[in-house]
Amino acid sequence: MIAVDWGTSSARAYRLAPDGAVLARREGAGGILRVPEGGFPAALTEMVGDWLADGETRVLLAGMVGSRQGWQEAPYLACPAGLDALAGAVVPVPFPGAAVRLVPGLSAEDAAGTPEVMRGEEVQVVGALARPDEDALICLPGSHAKWVRVAGGRIAGFTTHMTGEAFAALKDHTILGRMMTGTAEAGPAFAAGVARSAEGGGLLHHLFGTRTLGLFGRLAPEDAASYLSGLLIGHEVAAALTGGAALAGGAVLAGGGARVEPALVRPLVRLVGSGPLMALYGRAIALKGGEAVPGDPDAAARGLALIGERIQWA
Amino acid sequence: MIAVDWGTSSARAYRLAPDGAVLARREGAGGILRVPEGGFPAALTEMVGDWLADGETRVLLAGMVGSRQGWQEAPYLACPAGLDALAGAVVPVPFPGAAVRLVPGLSAEDAAGTPEVMRGEEVQVVGALARPDEDALICLPGSHAKWVRVAGGRIAGFTTHMTGEAFAALKDHTILGRMMTGTAEAGPAFAAGVARSAEGGGLLHHLFGTRTLGLFGRLAPEDAASYLSGLLIGHEVAAALTGGAALAGGAVLAGGGARVEPALVRPLVRLVGSGPLMALYGRAIALKGGEAVPGDPDAAARGLALIGERIQWA
Repeated sequence: MIAVDWGTSSARAYRLAPDGAVLARREGAGGILRVPEGGFPAALTEMVGDWLADGETRVLLAGMVGSRQGWQEAPYLACPAGLDALAGAVVPVPFPGAAVRLVPGLSAEDAAGTPEVMRGEEVQVVGALARPDEDALICLPGSHAKWVRVAGGRIAGFTTHMTGEAFAALKDHTILGRMMTGTAEAGPAFAAGVARSAEGGGLLHHLFGTRTLGLFGRLAPEDAASYLSGLLIGHEVAAALTGGAALAGGAVLAGGGARVEPALVRPLVRLVGSGPLMALYGRAIALKGGEAVPGDPDAAARGLALIGERIQWA
Repeated sequence: MIAVDWGTSSARAYRLAPDGAVLARREGAGGILRVPEGGFPAALTEMVGDWLADGETRVLLAGMVGSRQGWQEAPYLACPAGLDALAGAVVPVPFPGAAVRLVPGLSAEDAAGTPEVMRGEEVQVVGALARPDEDALICLPGSHAKWVRVAGGRIAGFTTHMTGEAFAALKDHTILGRMMTGTAEAGPAFAAGVARSAEGGGLLHHLFGTRTLGLFGRLAPEDAASYLSGLLIGHEVAAALTGGAALAGGAVLAGGGARVEPALVRPLVRLVGSGPLMALYGRAIALKGGEAVPGDPDAAARGLALIGERIQWA
């Protein structure tokens, strides 16, 4: 089977063995924003035409390729949803010589009834589970970071935090960026930002401190991006751990069946993704009293393989 | 006396009678960013040369004109500071034919020791007081909104919130702006954003709801800017009222000498400024359980007059 994680700005294709092992992988030429109207069949052929010529007949796609701006819209599936529900809701798209299916995104509502959506992260989440019936709290850092509660192997709910995109907008388009050099790293300045996020005054007040600390020589230009990142990720992690623990239950987060007092639990967070954000989130989670464990870097491929096994292809 | 509130992007000049009454007022050609190196004497002459020719010999300047990027740096004065301290710390700058003084900005530290600064708002605050020994909580909306605690007529401390600049960056440089038309208004969508700010999940999560509510048809494009503004100002006001009440004391905020249970107090906030933000902040403060009262629209001129009275000009 061929699996493609096809997002807004990038695409990653995998050739999978029947047991789900990754036989080959490659980066596509770009995300859905680079595909012209009606150009998806050609873009797929360009990306994996040689694998198709070599005998592959099944293609499973996930991500923004199933959005209104993609190949065809695959309507959101409501949580809770697991492998079987995802496999049962795939959407076929016409393509000569192979069966092509789109994995739907998921929708949910947060505790207050505000809608939530994801496209693509759901395959990473189901691919990151250690057991098919697992309970877990999974974090996927990114422009729109997701915190996903998994109960009994199914995605029970999730929240999105615009942390990455807010960081970029604040760094590049406010006065804060004028005094910044370099990029965010998980060192002392990042930890100082995380610590600051626990103090009073709120995020909008904390942001201004990035400027005043610089003005008074207490934050070097090369540390300012790290401090700002720590502020934002610190606020996110604190809110997510509070919400995640409250929603999923302390005992669940302890990772076992034992009944534990919630106050004594050190929340376990599985981090899924790659790149420099992983170190930043791992540090922030630890500083907030949680424990971050790395997930499978090939979670998307594994999730797509598991969904593919459950699809009625014929 | 001539008084000039000379900020980064604008300048406002007043000709004042000996009793502080505003005899004339005008907008200057622009803020300090438009003045070339060494060009401040010429810029002042351009702005108020006719008043000087008409016999004025004293000029008092406030705002970013006293910053490193301005005419000359007037070092920050530490809080607490009132009229006498400000008058005693003005900085003379050479100018042919008139005595020109710069009002210093103020610095403070928040409860956690993070520095705070203002330049220009201090004259508005002292000018907005109803009595020379007043206790008050004063809010100055803007790109960098200030919440100022006044105790016994002196500025005791303040916090800055980057709400206005964050709003602009998020609206113009993230995915949220793509679905927005129109500007922020103090209607139902703004109130919904303020209400949302009181729910769990944190600001970075709430931001994403602006997008998902639009995606599900629950927030019209023409309402999205108002909702986003309500989210941000709601977060700011909640943090500021909590901090302001905690720091200044409930009884003080009740505006009288009576001892009142803090929980029963409706915080009184004097709003100083002008433009559309006044209505937004007034609404948000009311929705958060406070009471907003408008301050003197000529607070800057009044504050400069009061400081001018106390300066040793000779």
